[in-house]
Amino acid sequence: MKAVIHVGLKPGVLDPQGRAIARSLNNLGFDEVTGAKQGRVIELDLKETRAALAESRVREMCEQLLANTVIESYRIRIEA
Amino acid sequence: MKAVIHVGLKPGVLDPQGRAIARSLNNLGFDEVTGAKQGRVIELDLKETRAALAESRVREMCEQLLANTVIESYRIRIEA
Repeated sequence: MKAVIHVGLKPGVLDPQGRAIARSLNNLGFDEVTGAKQGRVIELDLKETRAALAESRVREMCEQLLANTVIESYRIRIEA
Repeated sequence: MKAVIHVGLKPGVLDPQGRAIARSLNNLGFDEVTGAKQGRVIELDLKETRAALAESRVREMCEQLLANTVIESYRIRIEA
């Protein structure tokens, strides 16, 4: 099965990358953009076939490696 | 309204970052991981209120700035 993990900055954490994107878009003439945030998506292929077990393992992966939980939050979606 | 843009490598493009993630997870004991890909998600806040118009503008933003269309593909979702 597959796991899709969204990792993004927690609310309130300074986001210079998001600001740079919004400002660049404004400079290119896209005035309708009032804000931007950038996060990452990690897609994992897993041998595991039980969704509940897969999710708890992926949660461990996030805590240990995939997210910096001091400043980032993550969301896991398990797909068949 | 809001636009959520997924940017990822096109199939067939070498993905050293994905390989590094998969290998690191294997090294940590997560043997069920057989592959990994990393992409980015960009969330934009937009003043525009017409979904169709918003989407065509966001497509332009992707072509001009947000995606490297030589090696990356993107997917746009417009939210109210």
